[in-house]
Amino acid sequence: MFLYNAWYVAAWATEIGTKPLARTLLEEPVVFYRQSDGQVVVALEDRCCHRGMPLSRGEVFGNNIRCEYHGMVFDRSGNCVEIPGQPLVPKSARVRSFPVAERDGLIWMGDASLSDPAAIPSYPWHARWPHKCKTERLDCNYLLLSDNLLDQTHAAYVHKSTLASNVDAYERAEMKISPTEDGVKFIRWMLNCQPPGIYAKAVKFAGRVDRWGEFEYVAPSCILQFTGARNVGEGAYEKDDRDGGFGLRIFYGITPETEHTSWFMWSVANGHRQNEPQATEELFTEIEHAFKEDEDVLVAQYATLRKLGDRPLINIASDGARIHARLALERKIAQERGIPREEVITLA
Amino acid sequence: MFLYNAWYVAAWATEIGTKPLARTLLEEPVVFYRQSDGQVVVALEDRCCHRGMPLSRGEVFGNNIRCEYHGMVFDRSGNCVEIPGQPLVPKSARVRSFPVAERDGLIWMGDASLSDPAAIPSYPWHARWPHKCKTERLDCNYLLLSDNLLDQTHAAYVHKSTLASNVDAYERAEMKISPTEDGVKFIRWMLNCQPPGIYAKAVKFAGRVDRWGEFEYVAPSCILQFTGARNVGEGAYEKDDRDGGFGLRIFYGITPETEHTSWFMWSVANGHRQNEPQATEELFTEIEHAFKEDEDVLVAQYATLRKLGDRPLINIASDGARIHARLALERKIAQERGIPREEVITLA
Amino acid sequence: MFLYNAWYVAAWATEIGTKPLARTLLEEPVVFYRQSDGQVVVALEDRCCHRGMPLSRGEVFGNNIRCEYHGMVFDRSGNCVEIPGQPLVPKSARVRSFPVAERDGLIWMGDASLSDPAAIPSYPWHARWPHKCKTERLDCNYLLLSDNLLDQTHAAYVHKSTLASNVDAYERAEMKISPTEDGVKFIRWMLNCQPPGIYAKAVKFAGRVDRWGEFEYVAPSCILQFTGARNVGEGAYEKDDRDGGFGLRIFYGITPETEHTSWFMWSVANGHRQNEPQATEELFTEIEHAFKEDEDVLVAQYATLRKLGDRPLINIASDGARIHARLALERKIAQERGIPREEVITLA
Repeated sequence: MFLYNAWYVAAWATEIGTKPLARTLLEEPVVFYRQSDGQVVVALEDRCCHRGMPLSRGEVFGNNIRCEYHGMVFDRSGNCVEIPGQPLVPKSARVRSFPVAERDGLIWMGDASLSDPAAIPSYPWHARWPHKCKTERLDCNYLLLSDNLLDQTHAAYVHKSTLASNVDAYERAEMKISPTEDGVKFIRWMLNCQPPGIYAKAVKFAGRVDRWGEFEYVAPSCILQFTGARNVGEGAYEKDDRDGGFGLRIFYGITPETEHTSWFMWSVANGHRQNEPQATEELFTEIEHAFKEDEDVLVAQYATLRKLGDRPLINIASDGARIHARLALERKIAQERGIPREEVITLA
Repeated sequence: MFLYNAWYVAAWATEIGTKPLARTLLEEPVVFYRQSDGQVVVALEDRCCHRGMPLSRGEVFGNNIRCEYHGMVFDRSGNCVEIPGQPLVPKSARVRSFPVAERDGLIWMGDASLSDPAAIPSYPWHARWPHKCKTERLDCNYLLLSDNLLDQTHAAYVHKSTLASNVDAYERAEMKISPTEDGVKFIRWMLNCQPPGIYAKAVKFAGRVDRWGEFEYVAPSCILQFTGARNVGEGAYEKDDRDGGFGLRIFYGITPETEHTSWFMWSVANGHRQNEPQATEELFTEIEHAFKEDEDVLVAQYATLRKLGDRPLINIASDGARIHARLALERKIAQERGIPREEVITLA
Repeated sequence: MFLYNAWYVAAWATEIGTKPLARTLLEEPVVFYRQSDGQVVVALEDRCCHRGMPLSRGEVFGNNIRCEYHGMVFDRSGNCVEIPGQPLVPKSARVRSFPVAERDGLIWMGDASLSDPAAIPSYPWHARWPHKCKTERLDCNYLLLSDNLLDQTHAAYVHKSTLASNVDAYERAEMKISPTEDGVKFIRWMLNCQPPGIYAKAVKFAGRVDRWGEFEYVAPSCILQFTGARNVGEGAYEKDDRDGGFGLRIFYGITPETEHTSWFMWSVANGHRQNEPQATEELFTEIEHAFKEDEDVLVAQYATLRKLGDRPLINIASDGARIHARLALERKIAQERGIPREEVITLA
């Protein structure tokens, strides 16, 4: 069960131009394009109402898109405005259109007319910090991606060589979890620990560091991360002074393509050596490498869950944030469907 | 729902020799071979009745075929005539055989004993004009292929660079549609238009041409096309004098492999420069290229129809011939099954 | 329907070390590893009870295995013995474990607690004769493999160039079939026949030979073969003196991976020129080549059976041993399930 009346990240703004882009979201094939002014982004059902041809194979003419097969033309509202060889266009000649909003370098898509752009999470960091973004498609249910991010204890095992500190630091970590109306926030402090490889490469530390990972999950589609470390004694923890040292912010748009596949759209924004493009590039490469480690895990996990999904699983202590996130999503789906939360099934 | 009691094109005559050929038609795996005299073509169920082995992996001996696995031998009627190591052959040792007819360079297969060879469409042009043929397997329902051919307005968009005239010529085209008992015929005249690239390459025209496309669909399996152009004023349209200029005939055998895949068997016969083999070869290459354009479209269309096949489609003005063709097929299926035509589902 | 309360060959002993091995048996994903002493082999459900991660991607530490994802540790009984960051481990934190026995160079796996190691067939020949083994995965139901081995008349057709004698020798062969409680035994004598290519390559014969093939099927998982030939007149048949000449023994472990795929684990042990490693190597290569011929047949057969499995098949004279084998298996399944044998479906 998906939440439908909500905003999902559909693409990076840079992915959409006047060449149509086909992208399936929540099992719905959608064609995206920019009108020829380069401004307005259009999202239509990717299926011509005549013979079912994907409109994404067609061409954008001015503000409209022409089907490749028999040349029918549709405007941004999904109405057909031209049928070659036929003077009148019936009202039934239309395809579905979807609400779209472009914000902070992201294209968001809403499903229903109720979608209120005010509900889109704001993310000012793309404008403020140098950053680089990526879109990946993964063979797993989308919730495994947020599960992964919301339980950072995995870093000690999955990211041994990249993101991990000494294992005991993870176990001694201080976690503060705060459920929110739309999801959950948490901050995890690892005090007096070794800086992980990726940090030490980026910034020269004096020795041990105080390290934080701050995450906010906003159901159903995004996670905001602020991670960093300063030398022990510089007040990151004691005075919440987290400027300086090493810092990075990651935006995650996690959108179901189908029940079994996901779009994973992320950017990393760089808080150190911001006038050195190379620093951002290196950070991106490190993060990309770590995410590849996660992706291998998630695809293997999902293959097993699909085969043996009816067997019970258990929760452990580190699942706190993950469970709050799922509850928030389930509450929203229950509300949308008018059913009790207990009847919501988010992952079969 | 397929029509069963009918003749379908199974293969080109040149495809079948004494080496067995496996080909699935209408979801039925069939093995074809020629008896050792090189004359009689045999079509049997491609499954030994002993352990289910495909007979197409066996060997032809004289008039019969021997299973690769335990050596049982079957004759052209499907009766087992030898079981190694066993003196008697029980009557139950048999596989299904299918009626086959070889005509005009084509192998036709009927399904039931009612199949009457007199119902096979005659096609004299393979004997009269130089031609070249091809068999292709496509990932789409077979009806999308006849749909495509029966609505030639697609040429203006799909075949922009190959077959298309100026777009307005398509919109001004004169269409004469004649439903027949077995399908539909139509002729489309585009008068005073530019010769498309493929025509102009083959023949030197004085300038604008009168261009015709004549199609006959014979349910369920074939389409006969006669297409050409002459210089304006030479009487092609006014006097129905269509010799000279540029002309080609295409035979199409369109046979379901499964519900979701098709055999597309076509030949192009060349009406110009008939004593130049190179002219036929060039024409074939051009047509093959244009069909590749169609095939890309049909596979994309079918993938979308499979995903979203329950959403309504609309008909437009150019769908006339296509709709008559479907009606003819549906009438035949309804009659075969003894159900109302409205209950026939040809494409889910 | 599988027989569950039984021993199946899971792997060759040499395949399992301290690096975990993932192998699905009877639709159940299992992880195998050796404890760090190199002795005890452990078989656990390949799915962490926390988030479903395959344990086979984890690491063996001492006697236990640690999940790659969040670091939970399981012992050989399947009990979780450590959850990182959580002092207590609940009893529910466990995965299934399976009985394992290592015998004669083979790893056997039982399914239920009732599995009695005394029921494992003994195979002393790995200790006595030089041999070489292989594990293959095939796209067919596992019963097609035993079917194949239990009807040796296929050799005349499938193994024309490798194992076959003159065809009439197969037809004149003397078969003695003896049903057993657990399956069936048979011995096939081909007297006064040409030695097949593989025999003649290995040993120099005077001329014609008396050739035997002795097979024992032990339901559900293994077949023991002793095959050979001696010069006519040396008493192989008359005095049951089968030492000398050419001889080989093959052990087959045939275990379902899924309903549609199989593990085929076989060894060939060499009875001639036993002090020449090259002789064993050559024999292995010949047998491997012949099995490749079988595998091509079985995969093609199974593809057809899956498509047309509801059509009736017939039995022929050479099916005797195969039928006894199936009956023995069906009796065991019927007993395990408490249903009549007639209701057992071993191959859909």
